[in-house]
Amino acid sequence: MDRERYEDMGFAKLDMTREERTGFPEVVFCSGKTTEHLTEIFKKLYEEKGQVFGTRACEEQYKALSDALPDIPLSYDPVSGILKSERPGSSTQEKTGNIAVCTAGTADIKVAEEAAQTAEFFGNNVTRFYDIGVAGIHRITDNIEKIRKANVIIAVAGMEGALPSVLGGLVRVPVIAVPTSVGYGASFEGITALLSMINSCANGISVVNIDNGYGAGYIASQINSLAVNGNNYQP
Amino acid sequence: MDRERYEDMGFAKLDMTREERTGFPEVVFCSGKTTEHLTEIFKKLYEEKGQVFGTRACEEQYKALSDALPDIPLSYDPVSGILKSERPGSSTQEKTGNIAVCTAGTADIKVAEEAAQTAEFFGNNVTRFYDIGVAGIHRITDNIEKIRKANVIIAVAGMEGALPSVLGGLVRVPVIAVPTSVGYGASFEGITALLSMINSCANGISVVNIDNGYGAGYIASQINSLAVNGNNYQP
Amino acid sequence: MDRERYEDMGFAKLDMTREERTGFPEVVFCSGKTTEHLTEIFKKLYEEKGQVFGTRACEEQYKALSDALPDIPLSYDPVSGILKSERPGSSTQEKTGNIAVCTAGTADIKVAEEAAQTAEFFGNNVTRFYDIGVAGIHRITDNIEKIRKANVIIAVAGMEGALPSVLGGLVRVPVIAVPTSVGYGASFEGITALLSMINSCANGISVVNIDNGYGAGYIASQINSLAVNGNNYQP
Amino acid sequence: MDRERYEDMGFAKLDMTREERTGFPEVVFCSGKTTEHLTEIFKKLYEEKGQVFGTRACEEQYKALSDALPDIPLSYDPVSGILKSERPGSSTQEKTGNIAVCTAGTADIKVAEEAAQTAEFFGNNVTRFYDIGVAGIHRITDNIEKIRKANVIIAVAGMEGALPSVLGGLVRVPVIAVPTSVGYGASFEGITALLSMINSCANGISVVNIDNGYGAGYIASQINSLAVNGNNYQP
Amino acid sequence: MDRERYEDMGFAKLDMTREERTGFPEVVFCSGKTTEHLTEIFKKLYEEKGQVFGTRACEEQYKALSDALPDIPLSYDPVSGILKSERPGSSTQEKTGNIAVCTAGTADIKVAEEAAQTAEFFGNNVTRFYDIGVAGIHRITDNIEKIRKANVIIAVAGMEGALPSVLGGLVRVPVIAVPTSVGYGASFEGITALLSMINSCANGISVVNIDNGYGAGYIASQINSLAVNGNNYQP
Amino acid sequence: MDRERYEDMGFAKLDMTREERTGFPEVVFCSGKTTEHLTEIFKKLYEEKGQVFGTRACEEQYKALSDALPDIPLSYDPVSGILKSERPGSSTQEKTGNIAVCTAGTADIKVAEEAAQTAEFFGNNVTRFYDIGVAGIHRITDNIEKIRKANVIIAVAGMEGALPSVLGGLVRVPVIAVPTSVGYGASFEGITALLSMINSCANGISVVNIDNGYGAGYIASQINSLAVNGNNYQP
Amino acid sequence: MDRERYEDMGFAKLDMTREERTGFPEVVFCSGKTTEHLTEIFKKLYEEKGQVFGTRACEEQYKALSDALPDIPLSYDPVSGILKSERPGSSTQEKTGNIAVCTAGTADIKVAEEAAQTAEFFGNNVTRFYDIGVAGIHRITDNIEKIRKANVIIAVAGMEGALPSVLGGLVRVPVIAVPTSVGYGASFEGITALLSMINSCANGISVVNIDNGYGAGYIASQINSLAVNGNNYQP
Amino acid sequence: MDRERYEDMGFAKLDMTREERTGFPEVVFCSGKTTEHLTEIFKKLYEEKGQVFGTRACEEQYKALSDALPDIPLSYDPVSGILKSERPGSSTQEKTGNIAVCTAGTADIKVAEEAAQTAEFFGNNVTRFYDIGVAGIHRITDNIEKIRKANVIIAVAGMEGALPSVLGGLVRVPVIAVPTSVGYGASFEGITALLSMINSCANGISVVNIDNGYGAGYIASQINSLAVNGNNYQP
Repeated sequence: MDRERYEDMGFAKLDMTREERTGFPEVVFCSGKTTEHLTEIFKKLYEEKGQVFGTRACEEQYKALSDALPDIPLSYDPVSGILKSERPGSSTQEKTGNIAVCTAGTADIKVAEEAAQTAEFFGNNVTRFYDIGVAGIHRITDNIEKIRKANVIIAVAGMEGALPSVLGGLVRVPVIAVPTSVGYGASFEGITALLSMINSCANGISVVNIDNGYGAGYIASQINSLAVNGNNYQP
Repeated sequence: MDRERYEDMGFAKLDMTREERTGFPEVVFCSGKTTEHLTEIFKKLYEEKGQVFGTRACEEQYKALSDALPDIPLSYDPVSGILKSERPGSSTQEKTGNIAVCTAGTADIKVAEEAAQTAEFFGNNVTRFYDIGVAGIHRITDNIEKIRKANVIIAVAGMEGALPSVLGGLVRVPVIAVPTSVGYGASFEGITALLSMINSCANGISVVNIDNGYGAGYIASQINSLAVNGNNYQP
Repeated sequence: MDRERYEDMGFAKLDMTREERTGFPEVVFCSGKTTEHLTEIFKKLYEEKGQVFGTRACEEQYKALSDALPDIPLSYDPVSGILKSERPGSSTQEKTGNIAVCTAGTADIKVAEEAAQTAEFFGNNVTRFYDIGVAGIHRITDNIEKIRKANVIIAVAGMEGALPSVLGGLVRVPVIAVPTSVGYGASFEGITALLSMINSCANGISVVNIDNGYGAGYIASQINSLAVNGNNYQP
Repeated sequence: MDRERYEDMGFAKLDMTREERTGFPEVVFCSGKTTEHLTEIFKKLYEEKGQVFGTRACEEQYKALSDALPDIPLSYDPVSGILKSERPGSSTQEKTGNIAVCTAGTADIKVAEEAAQTAEFFGNNVTRFYDIGVAGIHRITDNIEKIRKANVIIAVAGMEGALPSVLGGLVRVPVIAVPTSVGYGASFEGITALLSMINSCANGISVVNIDNGYGAGYIASQINSLAVNGNNYQP
Repeated sequence: MDRERYEDMGFAKLDMTREERTGFPEVVFCSGKTTEHLTEIFKKLYEEKGQVFGTRACEEQYKALSDALPDIPLSYDPVSGILKSERPGSSTQEKTGNIAVCTAGTADIKVAEEAAQTAEFFGNNVTRFYDIGVAGIHRITDNIEKIRKANVIIAVAGMEGALPSVLGGLVRVPVIAVPTSVGYGASFEGITALLSMINSCANGISVVNIDNGYGAGYIASQINSLAVNGNNYQP
Repeated sequence: MDRERYEDMGFAKLDMTREERTGFPEVVFCSGKTTEHLTEIFKKLYEEKGQVFGTRACEEQYKALSDALPDIPLSYDPVSGILKSERPGSSTQEKTGNIAVCTAGTADIKVAEEAAQTAEFFGNNVTRFYDIGVAGIHRITDNIEKIRKANVIIAVAGMEGALPSVLGGLVRVPVIAVPTSVGYGASFEGITALLSMINSCANGISVVNIDNGYGAGYIASQINSLAVNGNNYQP
Repeated sequence: MDRERYEDMGFAKLDMTREERTGFPEVVFCSGKTTEHLTEIFKKLYEEKGQVFGTRACEEQYKALSDALPDIPLSYDPVSGILKSERPGSSTQEKTGNIAVCTAGTADIKVAEEAAQTAEFFGNNVTRFYDIGVAGIHRITDNIEKIRKANVIIAVAGMEGALPSVLGGLVRVPVIAVPTSVGYGASFEGITALLSMINSCANGISVVNIDNGYGAGYIASQINSLAVNGNNYQP
Repeated sequence: MDRERYEDMGFAKLDMTREERTGFPEVVFCSGKTTEHLTEIFKKLYEEKGQVFGTRACEEQYKALSDALPDIPLSYDPVSGILKSERPGSSTQEKTGNIAVCTAGTADIKVAEEAAQTAEFFGNNVTRFYDIGVAGIHRITDNIEKIRKANVIIAVAGMEGALPSVLGGLVRVPVIAVPTSVGYGASFEGITALLSMINSCANGISVVNIDNGYGAGYIASQINSLAVNGNNYQP
């Protein structure tokens, strides 16, 4: 099976066999792309795959693409910045497993939704636990039994980023820690949260880039898939 | 079931139900502990559990504990710094699943062995791929089919830390990236590798602390366990 | 009343009316001082005040001063690094109020003892809660009612430094956070813990320098004194 | 007494028993919150508590909330960014103790007012000493006797942040140091002031985040309360 | 021969013998220059040399100069930001040698074009290889034989900046690495890519400033010239 | 021709066709390697190639290898740290081209010699210009005509690292800038020199890692070879 | 003589005897001040002193103050950002001594003019040498004899900030180095230039904050005054 | 007059006309130099000039040079690290002007003595004011009248480095600020003091490298010389 085919568009080499090679379809990082480039990429992917999933899109890109591609049914979520065109019926399709997405505060929801919706697009069940930061530890203890049911946990936090450490000590499954740029002063746009998570005294914590909800959703999908289906790789 | 019992030793509160709560036994971080404290901890754990597993131990600690605890059969590996007493027969016990541990260079093996032996202690099969750094990409392509058989990959690299990015693009399973302090000058004792891995352009990469082989081995064990057994949590 | 008298020793201007001005006696920071200078300072203070209290002293300084000043009864604690000569009976003197000193791990005890013994030297009751880090949150919840009885809390932690945030959400009184250099890799000798504490999402947290147990003990003594006696300043 | 009740609003878990648990009512951090969320939070808190206190609000939020909640009497201070609705008569209610709020320069007043007004909302007397930076030391010496009457001092400074060190050497009570982002070039938006304060050679200095006037006002309120009332905690 | 003549314009000392001294004509860095200054510089250079080449120009500068200098035929490329007036026929003039310009992603093209067009202006053949990042290694292996034909390679990458390391291991000629500010979070506006490239485990990699396409184009032109013509310096 | 053969030694995969692939033989980075590993590597390379070239070796490694490999004629230079066994007659073999190696100060010679001797081992003529730092600019102007004869220049400097900028403005050929860890205080072990060189206002400057004399010698050899022989790559 | 009088304006304590105490009149840092505050300060100073000198003013502040204070003759220089009202005849008054103000590039002129005009306001002769950066060293050697006539030199540079090092090696008098935020990428808004200057290998270099032209002008005025008049301090 | 003669010793180009060019003789930075090199340099300078002055020398270098150069009368001061051979009678020669050298603490004396003795070697009167840090401001006010008599002030401080700011507000002459590596934790080996001084809110402060007593002594000598003799430069 050819797993290394790409579409050479000049300005980009579009990965057309991503799903065959890695198990998950190509996702478009919209931020910083020109409308022209984005339009070509959405068009190409929609034609070949019948769906497109873009992250970090802004309102303007949504409007421009809606105008440029009137035949493609696009939807846009301003909270997560996700701009997508799903296959008909995909939202009602049964999802598998269980991924818990937790946030320390309300301001972290933006990043958490990028993670959650990415995981849902990849076919996973997601349970959300928002605003359960460590300064009110009873909000964690109240919810911990529900969190423990997940196969993998995404913990999203800014400021001092302590949520993954507390969660890590209470569960058996991996915790994907997502530092966010929420905070001010010496939070340094998320660096403090990142460093804090990298130095967690709890076991089972690994970390992705600041505000990288998509990355956490991807890894959680890989782990949830392994937990549900095992490793189904075939050479 | 009581999952939150600890032994209060004054200077430490030893977690006696770690395995019941998290699925993995307590591990001792030896570095910086006094011989006296280490002796008490090893003694207590050996009495209760019949085994002890310590990381970041030095030659001197090994000798001191061997003298102080003549009845406990200790073994020490100077490469990984692991000091342990395993249950009789545990090394011949069948292990499960498959974790690939890869390094970019020879100097990264120290950290890789901490990861590999931790995973083996936790009952996992480990396959080693050492010295396959990206400056000689054919060393990766030669081995990639064997690496793809693993349920999870640990990628250990210092200097510019590019190994996880290349591996991440070639596999379906999560890659746990471990930056090492290998390098000089602007490698800043591993910071450059850490930043590089956090910013990986590949999907499926999450990162642990610099030189944290143990942490990577732990997470890989969690994921391998999910892939083999699914989530066996019971409230 | 003269509150600004100092002894000009050439290499130092010794503050002889510190207690009259600030409420607490002069304390000697021993680290980096030559034996000769340290001897002169201890001698001068002992003669004038009948007691001396030094922090960050090493074994060698203890021995050298014991030899040089045979008439001064010195005691040395290798854990905290405190080298002192107390007034007869001072250890049995009744102490006031209640300061809680907590640590995240065993390795933080060194710094915690500097804080605790400083506070005790200044006449305060101290209660110790060691090894109650957030990765085993039940160790906090088990002890929280006792911690709440204190007038002020010192929270000592390295690595990700999350302990003050969790404590801060559970108590009514100020938490003095002390980052420690405990950790490795991206803990950056305590910088990560410092940043984490400065960004705490909990209220009532203020922070001192890395490993600055003395500073925390001093501030806690000020607060405990205010809680017990109110502000007794007289112009 | 139930001290751990929260209102689960989906996007937020509002702490309804904050005052019972910590002695101080919930305060809303307005910055970054959407008008919709802010409106719901103000409405809920006003209904339950009869007052709301928000920090870091902008002119637009003030206008939007005034329109959305015509029945709640809101006031807004553009200097401190505080948006609040106080209980009738609260401003004429007698306040307790004495908190000194000092600034190094005129540009630091913004942060100082956040601290001062927070402390006043919590029922404390506040005395202001603005523009008394160390480059004109006579401005400090002229005012020091009045400053010494306070139970706790808040010292707000940007640039090299030296004010707390000078004050700390002149008083008996704790100094809460607040670095500000005032400055340019190598002031690094307040990092230099933060580091300077953390390294103060004076005793009794502890530090909060850059521009964190609210945090300093909170801690000062805790200390002033201890000085006036002692520790009135009851299990 | 006079190689050190400059035109003193008061606000600038224009290097009129740059080409005689260094082999390459003066290039104008437009960013930050006022329209007035830029106009004078373009006018002076065009009069003396019959051509002008400016980098980092914006749309507004292009328009302003077109208005102010109607007799000079200007062209502007919004992707690379290059604003120039070439000698008639220069674009059809035969170019020498071969410089490969490679990018990791689509967003790096902006910087790559600055490099490529600079090299073309200096008379070199350029071959472009865009979007061949290491997360899809087959995009490199597919093109490597063509890349190997170049006398020097420019490798442009943001995020973790791993492209130069992989290329460096596959070729015989120098690789000029250009970190870009493409990325987010811990990419720190290109610092991570810069550090990564400086620490490359491959041989033959040297690095220029973040986003410095011009600088890379200049050095590549020097090397290509040496490969084609040898060192033609004459005292 | 097979250009991708490696010797799998377990702990290392030795590149046996490095010269066929890149034009230059494998070089051993000795620092941090155990005597045992180093011995095996030197033995293997000497057997296959008849020569070995190691960098960053210490006196102890030289002695240990001399003892372990009595049949291999080793020589060691304590200034550059180079440990090698050259083919008979290689030192008298004619070398090609011209590489200028310059240092700002005397303390930079260590790094410069690593560069110079690497280039000589690769068959290049090297001319040395030591201690010509910019604080005595006449030392540069006195030597500039000789420097200009080189095909490529290596500029080695610590502290503020200004040498490459001044040289870059005076020559036609590429300048490889090598920051060194020479300096103290805010030189940050070479970071200041590295940053300074990366930001050079002169054209034609590219930079390698701090103290990376070997890397500079390698790139200079590539460029000198292109200047003398052109690009002799054959697929 | 009273040298410590200040005008307490509530929001500011205006230094009315600055000139008596330090030899130089109060200068107003306009940036960040509200129009209202700035108006009051300009009015007060003009009334008492007959002149006002403000730095870092923007066009809007100039217009607002011109409207608010129609009786005060204001002038504004958009390059330096200086907004002032000089005493009649002051510009034709004879100035003393000689201060050389040099810049590396054209973009540094903004900062240099702040320095030069400050020095001129304080009564000093200023000679300007602009765009003499080290990449074209002949621009320095051409002008050095004129520069040597000054009593003190201000050297303004961004990017790698090498100008002070070269000048420092050529003159007998102090060089005040002013790093500027000119540059991009790893110039880090002037940090690289600052570090470079702090590490200068030349003697006689001291450094002020990034873009701090005013500060350099002040110190140069102090030194020029000492050179012309000696120290005229009288208790 | 030839002012640009140097002695080319191979490993160094010794500046033999430094005094003619800059007004001050060549000084040797001993740290890091081999005994062999140091011996040759001391010998050469002593022969030509009749005196040698070296900074940052250690005990071992003193002993080695005493052995190697028995005919040169050497003296060594372990506090300042100065190793010198003065001309007979030079210590009793009359010195000119007045330089005040101040330190914040006792631990800063090491650096202050390097500054003071350098200035004395260059023929200046020095007055010392040690241990007058800002936490005991009366130690400054007690001495300020004596400090004001100096033509230039050197202010040496570690930790938060606030001393120059307070002094700068009290005097008319330039303050050369010297940050020291005294401190721990977030003092970052002097970086905090350096940043603090660079951001001083006082006028007249310029800064040299961390621990650079020599540099401060040099600049102070330049300024003191200008104050006493004016600028005596002759082309």
